[in-house]
Amino acid sequence: MARIVQKFGGTSVGDVERIKNVARRVKSEIDLGNQVAVVVSAMSGETNRLVGYTGEMGALVDAREYDVVVSSGEQVTSGLLALALQDLGIPARSWMGWQIPIHTDGIHGKARIAEIGTDALSERLNGGEVVVVPGFQGVGPDNRITTLGRGGSDTSAVALAAALKADRCDIYTDVDGVYTCDPRIVTKAKKLDKITYEEMLEMASLGAKVLQTRSVEMGMKHGVRLQVRSSFSEDEGTLVVDEDEIVEKELVSGIAYSKDEAKITLVSVADRPGVAAHIFGPLAEASVNVDMIVQNISEEGRTDVTFTVPNGDLSRAVEVLEKSTEVNYKQLISDPDVVKVSVVGVGMRSHAGVAQNMFQTLADKGINIQVISTSEIKVSVLIAEEYFELALRALHTAYGLDAEEV
Amino acid sequence: MARIVQKFGGTSVGDVERIKNVARRVKSEIDLGNQVAVVVSAMSGETNRLVGYTGEMGALVDAREYDVVVSSGEQVTSGLLALALQDLGIPARSWMGWQIPIHTDGIHGKARIAEIGTDALSERLNGGEVVVVPGFQGVGPDNRITTLGRGGSDTSAVALAAALKADRCDIYTDVDGVYTCDPRIVTKAKKLDKITYEEMLEMASLGAKVLQTRSVEMGMKHGVRLQVRSSFSEDEGTLVVDEDEIVEKELVSGIAYSKDEAKITLVSVADRPGVAAHIFGPLAEASVNVDMIVQNISEEGRTDVTFTVPNGDLSRAVEVLEKSTEVNYKQLISDPDVVKVSVVGVGMRSHAGVAQNMFQTLADKGINIQVISTSEIKVSVLIAEEYFELALRALHTAYGLDAEEV
Repeated sequence: MARIVQKFGGTSVGDVERIKNVARRVKSEIDLGNQVAVVVSAMSGETNRLVGYTGEMGALVDAREYDVVVSSGEQVTSGLLALALQDLGIPARSWMGWQIPIHTDGIHGKARIAEIGTDALSERLNGGEVVVVPGFQGVGPDNRITTLGRGGSDTSAVALAAALKADRCDIYTDVDGVYTCDPRIVTKAKKLDKITYEEMLEMASLGAKVLQTRSVEMGMKHGVRLQVRSSFSEDEGTLVVDEDEIVEKELVSGIAYSKDEAKITLVSVADRPGVAAHIFGPLAEASVNVDMIVQNISEEGRTDVTFTVPNGDLSRAVEVLEKSTEVNYKQLISDPDVVKVSVVGVGMRSHAGVAQNMFQTLADKGINIQVISTSEIKVSVLIAEEYFELALRALHTAYGLDAEEV
Repeated sequence: MARIVQKFGGTSVGDVERIKNVARRVKSEIDLGNQVAVVVSAMSGETNRLVGYTGEMGALVDAREYDVVVSSGEQVTSGLLALALQDLGIPARSWMGWQIPIHTDGIHGKARIAEIGTDALSERLNGGEVVVVPGFQGVGPDNRITTLGRGGSDTSAVALAAALKADRCDIYTDVDGVYTCDPRIVTKAKKLDKITYEEMLEMASLGAKVLQTRSVEMGMKHGVRLQVRSSFSEDEGTLVVDEDEIVEKELVSGIAYSKDEAKITLVSVADRPGVAAHIFGPLAEASVNVDMIVQNISEEGRTDVTFTVPNGDLSRAVEVLEKSTEVNYKQLISDPDVVKVSVVGVGMRSHAGVAQNMFQTLADKGINIQVISTSEIKVSVLIAEEYFELALRALHTAYGLDAEEV
């Protein structure tokens, strides 16, 4: 007997029939003799509808009332799934965040889970009852409903799995696992059987939107065995596990990309101590998230500074820099048509040559690298958007990731 | 300064613009220096949508999960109205049933309010904040969400007004008050300035669907001054008050009707002690609500028994009676095409002749009375459905209720 947490996203519970399908998926775990806690998202489209309403009420939206409105989507799904399970003869009940309780901090709209009470849930699970929990919601120190921010249901599921000491946390979604690369672009991409938390974190933060970053961090911290799998097929998915569990460590496990990047170059900045602080201080104050940074010597006493920001922050970043009187530069060049491509793999910790292989592969295809950044387990490059599909396919082949048969 | 509870029904909060309109109605009370608690229904259509979902989940619906799903409609409206009020510069927050708390009994799906905690709400009201409360919901002894049954938001509002010792409870709806008769049928119907609780109760239970019966009972019990008014006009509505407040008591205040009636006649029942129990016992067990009853002597030792049941219960009632071996009758005649017409007025307590006027008026129009029942403040007759509009207009004139100008 194992204790499993299952999480079903918005498309998996998108309508009445799909909720019944989810009930059958839950039943198949129960039939194996397992204990099951289920975390559900709102029916697809519901959260957008509710968020839309709040936006129409006025210019400033009180996050506490936003939470009241938006959390109702998950509440509905949890009640409906409990009913669907009961209809299959499985004892089940829904548990709101405030009933469990899932205590969070008071940052409405993007709260963080502080503590989960497990006595009641454990008792029900031990008694053979399925507990159905609306994802994305908790209760703050003010005894008001909080939400965890978009995609927070993954985090709810992993936190619940940690609190309940679950043997596994299965994240059901509309893809059947984590792939070596986006299969819509690289047709030879393979599904991975296993991936480490660290790799998954890099993949998630780089735009492979399979799992929410915070949920992976939490899984890593608490050692929760995560599985990403499809709610529409019976296939095994991808297990996200500790590095120790993976015997054969690939040099590169996957290739990720992010189109949500824009490049800013400040040409001929006066190169003196403190200049970086003068550039990036005001950007941080304006909540612009700066990612890759390079600084080149251009002429005596002056330097070029290039960095990337999220596309949505580009105009704000440019405005901040143009207003700033502290930064002395000759020209500001911005470019939204760039993509960050990254090769990720824990194996590269102990192997040299991974970056060189990447640079050579791109050079062979005539693709210019604009910015480079590296971490212990990834190498990222910024390239012109028009080349990115070509780059992904070339790198996928170069690192030996192509599936044998397509 | 007065303390007011305002209640807005589903059509009054039917879309984003209407919720903003409600916020302006609340603001106009605030601008008068009043304290305001608002009770809101779900946006029109929402409750039906949610109830529909629950019905699609299976044959048997667990009322506890039904409550979780269906109560979310009011939750959404309360959050949105708080936002709309804040946008007008009015401090406001939503209060869920479990936060206040509104304690109910544990009869999920049709719970009764047991007690309302008022400390927090009173403090906020005294501080000038508008409190927005989702109608229809509370929290049961099991710490789970309960709902009060359809139309329960009226009851929420009156209970809250009683608990908060409000000076008035304004029920905003899509009609602008209580009329002497249904204005769609009797064009000369007048809006009443005042009506007594007792009259309103008779009118409500007789099918004038302006206020939910339970809310009127509760208003009477706690002496809550109720006002029925339109959310779409600035006109004064109808005040529902204690009899003492009405100086000029009309003999008849209004004429109500109910089409939800069906007649059953058992012909030639053996007339012996206990026969009524044998007829109505099995019906009560089958939850058939019997209303008017008459028993006529037909021949020696036998009698005809006629009574009415709600239309929806007719086939069940017939089935029960046909199966029963205890009742010995010659024939069962049922007729769904009947209407109950009632004249209602507290003045008739102290005046004779009200019933006689009714019988004579109907006789003059050639309308046959099938069953008669009376209470202290009303006289009801059952007539064939085809005559009911004619009867309403004739009685409206006969009791001097016609408006002078149409």
